[in-house]
Amino acid sequence: MKFVTFNHRGTEHAGVLNEEGTGVIPVPGSQDLLSLIDNWTEAASQLATVTGPAINLADVELLAPIPVPRRNIFCVGRNYVEHAKEFANSGYDATASATAQPEYPVVFTKAPSTVIGTGADIDPHTGVTSELDYEAELGVIIGIGGRGISRADALDHVWGYTIINDVTARDLQKDHKQWFLGKSLDTHAPMGPWAVTRDEIGDGPLDLHCSVNGETRQKATTADLIFDIPTIIETISAGITLQPGDIIATGTPVGVGIGFTPPRFLGTGDVVEISITGLGTLSNRIGEGR
Amino acid sequence: MKFVTFNHRGTEHAGVLNEEGTGVIPVPGSQDLLSLIDNWTEAASQLATVTGPAINLADVELLAPIPVPRRNIFCVGRNYVEHAKEFANSGYDATASATAQPEYPVVFTKAPSTVIGTGADIDPHTGVTSELDYEAELGVIIGIGGRGISRADALDHVWGYTIINDVTARDLQKDHKQWFLGKSLDTHAPMGPWAVTRDEIGDGPLDLHCSVNGETRQKATTADLIFDIPTIIETISAGITLQPGDIIATGTPVGVGIGFTPPRFLGTGDVVEISITGLGTLSNRIGEGR
Repeated sequence: MKFVTFNHRGTEHAGVLNEEGTGVIPVPGSQDLLSLIDNWTEAASQLATVTGPAINLADVELLAPIPVPRRNIFCVGRNYVEHAKEFANSGYDATASATAQPEYPVVFTKAPSTVIGTGADIDPHTGVTSELDYEAELGVIIGIGGRGISRADALDHVWGYTIINDVTARDLQKDHKQWFLGKSLDTHAPMGPWAVTRDEIGDGPLDLHCSVNGETRQKATTADLIFDIPTIIETISAGITLQPGDIIATGTPVGVGIGFTPPRFLGTGDVVEISITGLGTLSNRIGEGR
Repeated sequence: MKFVTFNHRGTEHAGVLNEEGTGVIPVPGSQDLLSLIDNWTEAASQLATVTGPAINLADVELLAPIPVPRRNIFCVGRNYVEHAKEFANSGYDATASATAQPEYPVVFTKAPSTVIGTGADIDPHTGVTSELDYEAELGVIIGIGGRGISRADALDHVWGYTIINDVTARDLQKDHKQWFLGKSLDTHAPMGPWAVTRDEIGDGPLDLHCSVNGETRQKATTADLIFDIPTIIETISAGITLQPGDIIATGTPVGVGIGFTPPRFLGTGDVVEISITGLGTLSNRIGEGR
């Protein structure tokens, strides 16, 4: 099933996308997807019977499936070989490394306040950064929490998948050495348009496509992840208890703005569109900022 | 005033430490400090009239003042000159840097699930890390949120202060390049024993002392911070809207375990005690793990 969180006439709801993909059916009593994931066994049986008239997609504002995560988004860096190379060659990686390809997963976070839904404007933060870049990524949503999860069991802890644009201020990422600040400016984690349960989407590999103003920039398959999803979950959960609703952005493939010479940064008016097999299209414009 | 969050007979309360420091007076209707900080103007007037019999400190379990932060703790790395040198010399910093002293604040995060109170055991995570280290730090708690906060206005956004032990798995910090994993193992952010409002503690400088099994390891003054608190707040809030209850760990001075040759790591049974002027003593033992 495809889940959305949406705003309709000023109220937030969790909902299910109808089969035609033209409307959303609210889940009674649920404000967002987090509350459903928290009690998924119960919710799943309730959801099987969710019917009723769909509200036309055009009449709602889609929010991110999880508009306010309970803690920072876990993110994996340098997780596709060709992107690891372009990043190393760009001079923007302050992390010492003999080889571009990491020996261990590189994990950092994005603040929950970065999250916006499809269609919402990305704030360019003019005056704070002048090197705004996109990163198309497959997002994993954790269903059942746990610590010390093995690779073999890892996928059983996955609730489902979504698309994340790991928007990055490259100057801040470089200057501050640790990536957090450059990754966490307000509005810099567009997510959505919806979230799809693992039982519907399967475990991939999935095709990923990213364009800027209609021009293809990234085209990849998640089969090329250096550290696959089970490995990422095993690594993070070794010492951090994963919780229902935790979100993991799995890394971006080759083709980001700093991969070009000279770099091609984003500016007001640019539109970034990311599509992943079965997960829809996440579309965001760079706005004027506030 | 000194605020505590505590467990008494199975129920969590926010409370005020009495003047003698021997007991806690519950704040009616408040489960933890976060809810008070959210509505501080209102809470402050209510608190002026909080009286009633104190519960003996010995009869309660002190929790961290904010037991579950709403997002990851913001942390500043390499923020004292002599520590920046010992860290660079230790070989544990995977961040390329011509000089040990950073040009810009180095900011990373710790997951909310790292937080424990004074007296609680630190999990050694045997099998995940074999290089456990302590870092005594002054913690800043944000009162009034905002974005684009200037240095001049920054201290008006500070609700108060507490002590944080930024426990670190040095092997993970090094291997994974970005520090998040090495900083975020469960129980690795002891915090407390209480939180003190800015109007009581002032703006420092404060003296900091850290011992392991009674032996002094760190002795410093916050006057030696490379990036002072106003600069840290200005830097983070430039593009990230700070929220009431946000926590910032300001960095650790010289004297951590990897500063010794050979390094002196923590093991089960070791007790780390951190004191800061006016903020009490945070004491945690390394437990057996789970």
